[in-house]
Amino acid sequence: MALPIYLGLVHYPIYNKNDEVITTAITNFDIHDIARTSRTYDVKKYFIIHPHESQTKLAQEIMDYWQIGFGGQYNPDRLEAFSVLDIKSDIKSAVEYITECEGTPPIIITTDARKFPNTISYQQMREQIENSSKPYLILFGTGWGIENSVMAEFDYILEPIYGPGDYNHLPVRAAVAIILDRLLGEKWWE
Amino acid sequence: MALPIYLGLVHYPIYNKNDEVITTAITNFDIHDIARTSRTYDVKKYFIIHPHESQTKLAQEIMDYWQIGFGGQYNPDRLEAFSVLDIKSDIKSAVEYITECEGTPPIIITTDARKFPNTISYQQMREQIENSSKPYLILFGTGWGIENSVMAEFDYILEPIYGPGDYNHLPVRAAVAIILDRLLGEKWWE
Repeated sequence: MALPIYLGLVHYPIYNKNDEVITTAITNFDIHDIARTSRTYDVKKYFIIHPHESQTKLAQEIMDYWQIGFGGQYNPDRLEAFSVLDIKSDIKSAVEYITECEGTPPIIITTDARKFPNTISYQQMREQIENSSKPYLILFGTGWGIENSVMAEFDYILEPIYGPGDYNHLPVRAAVAIILDRLLGEKWWE
Repeated sequence: MALPIYLGLVHYPIYNKNDEVITTAITNFDIHDIARTSRTYDVKKYFIIHPHESQTKLAQEIMDYWQIGFGGQYNPDRLEAFSVLDIKSDIKSAVEYITECEGTPPIIITTDARKFPNTISYQQMREQIENSSKPYLILFGTGWGIENSVMAEFDYILEPIYGPGDYNHLPVRAAVAIILDRLLGEKWWE
């Protein structure tokens, strides 16, 4: 049975490269790639979290094309990926949705290039998820990361993903894929 | 020291959804996302492999914008990611480039949703790379996969990536990220 794992891509409040708090734009590729990866790893819902209706309307139109319109006929696999997609105006609304569905609020996890007091390893997090019946919401920031006071309210921060070198600028789409594989993928190393 | 690992994204000969052999288009997101992921995992070169000059010219223009033009000034991290990018007209040219640089031809690995006689597990492949001084070329197909007679010439086929469910349609950008993390990433599970 699928675990109660939820994912959210946060567009506000986000830092830009000058440490100013901004709202980032929704991109078509974030919708498609992360929906397909979420569906592969049996995520229950992938929330696009954005406060502005002008942007969420665009996301809704893309969803409709694949869920109701021609896209789903042409490519049924994409239709299935889009079935996990949902749009919420803020993190609180996503949490409320999960609380209503699961009967209990989710444990909120995020990832950050920086280390925090509640930073947790992938091995620890994977074990915790395996041995828990609670819902989890894994949040990913866009831009240069989620604003600090919001970060401080989350339960766990996953360690940064390091490659063998010193370069640390993975696309969020790649980070989502690697993190879902580490937390929910098969135990290929055994 | 960085391992002699090379990566290639193959646009010909590729199957479309009707099992016909076609040439796929180069997409901007494949260039950016896979360059950033390749740089993170210390890949020596990421080859865009495409036979038509009209398409490779476009890829070259995008490369120039980030390597020589304004892009690299605005975002130096992207400039660094683009330093691993190269364009080749076919797989043979990529193999020749590696053979010239490394003094020996690469072992060619690819991945496929189907199983083959030379299919290898991620654990076996990771160990082999760790204990080898040979160069490796990891090839990824676009569309519905690389044509069979070309696949038959490769040394190893990596197992398909399975999530916990039955849906198996990861974007190639996500597959690259997961596979590089499994083969070259830190041993986070220990």
